[in-house]
Amino acid sequence: MRHEDLTLHTDKYQINMMYAHWKNGTQNKKCVCEAFYRKNPFGNGYAVFAGLERIAYYLQNLNFSEEDINYLREQEEQYEEGFLEELRNFRFTGNLASVKEGTIVFPKEPLIRVEARIFEAHLIETALLNFMNYQTLIATKAARVKQVAPEDYLMEFGTRRAQEADAAIWGARAAYIAGFDATSNLLAGKYFGIPTKGTHAHSWVQSFASEEDAFRKFAEALPDQSTLLVDTYDSMKSGLPNAIKIGLELKDKGKTLKGIRLDSGDLAYLSIQARKMLDEAGLNDTVIVASNDLDEDVISELKGQGAMITSWGVGTQLITAADQPALGGVYKLVARENNGEYVPTIKVSGNVEKVTTPGFKTVYRIVNEDTGKAEADYIAMEDEKLPEKDIYLFDPVETYKDKTIHRFQAQELLQPVFKDGELIYDLPTVHEIKTYYNGQIKMFWPEHMRKLNPQTYFVDLSKKVWSTKMELLKQAAKN
Amino acid sequence: MRHEDLTLHTDKYQINMMYAHWKNGTQNKKCVCEAFYRKNPFGNGYAVFAGLERIAYYLQNLNFSEEDINYLREQEEQYEEGFLEELRNFRFTGNLASVKEGTIVFPKEPLIRVEARIFEAHLIETALLNFMNYQTLIATKAARVKQVAPEDYLMEFGTRRAQEADAAIWGARAAYIAGFDATSNLLAGKYFGIPTKGTHAHSWVQSFASEEDAFRKFAEALPDQSTLLVDTYDSMKSGLPNAIKIGLELKDKGKTLKGIRLDSGDLAYLSIQARKMLDEAGLNDTVIVASNDLDEDVISELKGQGAMITSWGVGTQLITAADQPALGGVYKLVARENNGEYVPTIKVSGNVEKVTTPGFKTVYRIVNEDTGKAEADYIAMEDEKLPEKDIYLFDPVETYKDKTIHRFQAQELLQPVFKDGELIYDLPTVHEIKTYYNGQIKMFWPEHMRKLNPQTYFVDLSKKVWSTKMELLKQAAKN
Repeated sequence: MRHEDLTLHTDKYQINMMYAHWKNGTQNKKCVCEAFYRKNPFGNGYAVFAGLERIAYYLQNLNFSEEDINYLREQEEQYEEGFLEELRNFRFTGNLASVKEGTIVFPKEPLIRVEARIFEAHLIETALLNFMNYQTLIATKAARVKQVAPEDYLMEFGTRRAQEADAAIWGARAAYIAGFDATSNLLAGKYFGIPTKGTHAHSWVQSFASEEDAFRKFAEALPDQSTLLVDTYDSMKSGLPNAIKIGLELKDKGKTLKGIRLDSGDLAYLSIQARKMLDEAGLNDTVIVASNDLDEDVISELKGQGAMITSWGVGTQLITAADQPALGGVYKLVARENNGEYVPTIKVSGNVEKVTTPGFKTVYRIVNEDTGKAEADYIAMEDEKLPEKDIYLFDPVETYKDKTIHRFQAQELLQPVFKDGELIYDLPTVHEIKTYYNGQIKMFWPEHMRKLNPQTYFVDLSKKVWSTKMELLKQAAKN
Repeated sequence: MRHEDLTLHTDKYQINMMYAHWKNGTQNKKCVCEAFYRKNPFGNGYAVFAGLERIAYYLQNLNFSEEDINYLREQEEQYEEGFLEELRNFRFTGNLASVKEGTIVFPKEPLIRVEARIFEAHLIETALLNFMNYQTLIATKAARVKQVAPEDYLMEFGTRRAQEADAAIWGARAAYIAGFDATSNLLAGKYFGIPTKGTHAHSWVQSFASEEDAFRKFAEALPDQSTLLVDTYDSMKSGLPNAIKIGLELKDKGKTLKGIRLDSGDLAYLSIQARKMLDEAGLNDTVIVASNDLDEDVISELKGQGAMITSWGVGTQLITAADQPALGGVYKLVARENNGEYVPTIKVSGNVEKVTTPGFKTVYRIVNEDTGKAEADYIAMEDEKLPEKDIYLFDPVETYKDKTIHRFQAQELLQPVFKDGELIYDLPTVHEIKTYYNGQIKMFWPEHMRKLNPQTYFVDLSKKVWSTKMELLKQAAKN
């Protein structure tokens, strides 16, 4: 794993606010902040939470080096030495609770909750959001791709089009968690133990005098792993016939041509023709791999047209989440310490969807015991006691929409991760997270999970949380 | 600067092809590869090349660690020990030529040219494209934003929405090169010497009992740098009046309230009202900063509506290049060594725009001596001699479209960067690159530079390059 020095990977305004709190003597007051997002990406009905492992390492390694301190001194002559001294001793000493990676999550519920000195809570906002936003976005995109090709082999092939190295590496991890089987990125493979896959490039073919020769040499070198790219010159006239020739040569040696890859042209038509030609040659075990700007919509269309592709290399569209390349997660102060107690705080704003829900809260998943399915998520104050049965749920905006669940389990989604700055959570492997994710998706009715126009899953507020919000909104309106 | 171990930041197929060449005894044959992109992003008429510094560090640090070797051995049992031994001694020993960072570039011209052992040329493709694609994309986006607000102060505020840490850091650099004045990201500031800026967050206001108090404390802490965010409760009713109160208090102390920031609501209306209120209070020097999902189109519209904003915080849309989050640059083999000579190679493909231009080439910018403006870019073989005057240009597709430039300067865009694996190029600072970029944009007619429906700038082929391409296309069709 990479242990980079990311302490200054934050916005300058965080340091300005830390400084202003220090000047004001309020830097050690505690506060509670929540990270959440407001709207599902891609028109999806949910998101897949990811990024916690990255955040955990980041928090463990927070530390201002002498170089960092010197940089800040030069940058801002207004910073006093006493403040820089305080930074020199800085480390994360707070509590952090988070939903587990691989959890299906919904808008406006707390995904990460930080309880810390305001000094620390400010510093970490930027990087925490940066990590959560990206991995959650890519995991969600991957989940959508998996949904349209549940039985196929999915490979993340996006590194060259990723938004720099970290995106390639952490994106490969996020994709693996939520449905992908492998990545092409070897560094991601090495860091996380994700299977790595790859075929060959056009340049392999071009570096030989003939395509046939290029294919033969490749199959000789890697007889157990040769997937031949057939579109360097002409897929139907040259690539496929040459690949079949090599496939038959391998067969004579008791080996199997693993696959052929289509990377341009009409993938539906070409794959159907290729399947016929391969089968007629007796190469029934040779699979057809496709790539070329694929996403869940293209794959779904190709399947609808009977494409004979069972292995998909998905690149740009996945690794950049091209149809919506940012999740838009935010981190908001929901309570501040005053005379040793937490006072709930609100942010109002001119845009109604930007109004926050105040208070030191937690979130439960209400699972109906009769069906085993999740019925709603339920945000309550952290110290609220939930009823044992007959929980009353109502829509926080259209409050007349309500229902009561009689027999339910309330699963608390936020798990303790840091306690007084110590990591107290066993970070699971990506394989464990993937297994957990596969269990998660079974807990929801299909209507919430579908790719297009999903039914809204409800995230409700307890009466206490709802009343607190209404009360603070009224107060703010009076000011 | 970060010196990470990125040697395995590559696609597995590169290592597979390296292995297959090693098995075949062809790993030391030389080849020439070119990196280029096919289509301008965002409907723009050009791109701004960036990423070279990152690529240079990457190449200098290429080296398989023992850990990397062990990982590869475990990953692929087909790899023989002799191959792994070869990797142990691997370093980049090739030549690399590149256009300078900050250069205005166009589709289908070589931006980076690698001449190296095929073994090396394969390995570096993935990371080279990853770095070039991202920074060039963001620099181009930044150039568009700068174009609609040439006199204003532009701040890159995207870190929390960037696609992970590298994107935030290298994206801030790219944005600075092509028009931005500052970034919020302190690590980017520290690494590259980019000015850093920041205001404060809603959470600052929320952590005090009243907005007025919060503003006052902030201004007391940072009297020379206080820009107050006015929309935590209500911009017009509360935020602005409170900010003006603090502005007047600062004025009494001989200080100036630096700015107010609007982050929601109707930015045109609010900024016009805010300007009036500030001016009426005598706070004429207090600037109005805006943020909230801005991009070049929104800024242009706001300016059209008379918005009184002179400082812009641009986040998500810039740092993710949201309307097209990948450049799509590729790296293609254009020549291979055969009996000590370079043979040009072509890739045909079913998609016509994917056909490559063969040969060991270079690219010149043809600058008309009478106007001082660039007339076209001209791709020639590396060893071709250009005419001293009367250069004949023709469209490589619609060949009847032609012209002759009589008096011209031909500026070779590709500069030597690595020679036999040694960096022989003085990497300029970001400030030098920015200055160079500012000179670049003056070399083009405005019709190529405009944001919407720009006139196509021509990238032409020399007769020799064009004939080579036609010849190889014919050969491929015959096969």
